[in-house]
Amino acid sequence: MSSHHIIKDDQEPALIIANGAACNQELLGQLLEWSPLVIVLDSAISRVLELGIKVDVLLGDFDRDFDPNYYREIQYPLEIVNTPDQNKTDLEKAFDYLIERNIPAVNVVWATGKRADHTITNITSVVKFSEKLKIVLFDDHSKIFHLPRKYEKWYPKNTVISLIPIGAVHGIHSQNLFYPLQNDSLQIGYRSGSSNHVAEDGIVIIEHLEGDLILMECWD
Amino acid sequence: MSSHHIIKDDQEPALIIANGAACNQELLGQLLEWSPLVIVLDSAISRVLELGIKVDVLLGDFDRDFDPNYYREIQYPLEIVNTPDQNKTDLEKAFDYLIERNIPAVNVVWATGKRADHTITNITSVVKFSEKLKIVLFDDHSKIFHLPRKYEKWYPKNTVISLIPIGAVHGIHSQNLFYPLQNDSLQIGYRSGSSNHVAEDGIVIIEHLEGDLILMECWD
Repeated sequence: MSSHHIIKDDQEPALIIANGAACNQELLGQLLEWSPLVIVLDSAISRVLELGIKVDVLLGDFDRDFDPNYYREIQYPLEIVNTPDQNKTDLEKAFDYLIERNIPAVNVVWATGKRADHTITNITSVVKFSEKLKIVLFDDHSKIFHLPRKYEKWYPKNTVISLIPIGAVHGIHSQNLFYPLQNDSLQIGYRSGSSNHVAEDGIVIIEHLEGDLILMECWD
Repeated sequence: MSSHHIIKDDQEPALIIANGAACNQELLGQLLEWSPLVIVLDSAISRVLELGIKVDVLLGDFDRDFDPNYYREIQYPLEIVNTPDQNKTDLEKAFDYLIERNIPAVNVVWATGKRADHTITNITSVVKFSEKLKIVLFDDHSKIFHLPRKYEKWYPKNTVISLIPIGAVHGIHSQNLFYPLQNDSLQIGYRSGSSNHVAEDGIVIIEHLEGDLILMECWD
């Protein structure tokens, strides 16, 4: 699985492989096909290289007796980005790195599973980068992204759509969801829009006036 | 693994087995030892019975052509609680059920993993029940619970402690954390207190004035 494009084009979404649970190989292979730039976070590099994936950037704070140069020797070229800032997660540092390189979009895998603190922090951290970077998180059961004020997309009937408020979200309207929202509010921990689904084949519209709203397309 | 107490004592924490990823058998065995009442959510019942666990209550909305009575026949007695309310998750309905039975505490497993919408909704939903029910979620990498305004506990040095704000949390003070908080604020999606750790063997104190704060003890 080393088939990602040789020609670099920074307009294609990059791929970040984080340090949570591995996804299935088919999903990873599909995302690698479209990813000109592959960034791996910290000690995930050993699991990634075992899969025969060509990595462009290894990024992390490299604590815990981890020597990144070892990996430069076994896979060349490899850019090593040392990011010791303890106020940000490795995933946030990778988003910063992409924004600095003017890369507009990124897919992220291995960001969920294993430690629950990493899972919830990784998922919710997409909101603060949403104006500068188009971020989509994938795992074996979920596709996760931040919603603009007005979102429109064609979906087949019964697609599961979960609306997760990151904080409080107000003025939510939906069209073509089975449980419609009409000037509704959602608040994390108190009122969630989880496990809704598409009413009929066709365009789904989700609008909100205020707050950060994440959409999750999920499947069992 | 059918060794949980026969004698029912509603003062011991109940155990809810939700419908996410299974945890390791050792953790499940330990929690069953202490759980006089075992509640299983919806279609997780088939996976639970395969493990030879004695179940007391099967709770869910039983959509998707699921016949709960089938399980009453293969394991008797089994209380079946049909909860069709679409505004609540099955886990929230199980919390309601325990509150109605005046059971004061519950451990929860299989609430994380698989679908990300279920994971984040299950974890964050503990905050709205915190005044009526002492809830602790466990998975293979995490122990998760809501913090009172003042929390004190003895921990060994280097224990990972993640503070996850569910919304905005203000006036946070800590003692004996490696990255101390002093009248700090945290906000989900914007500023998290993830991946802190205990500075020295001893009492950790975490106080906050306003908002819902979750503590996660996590390990790799």
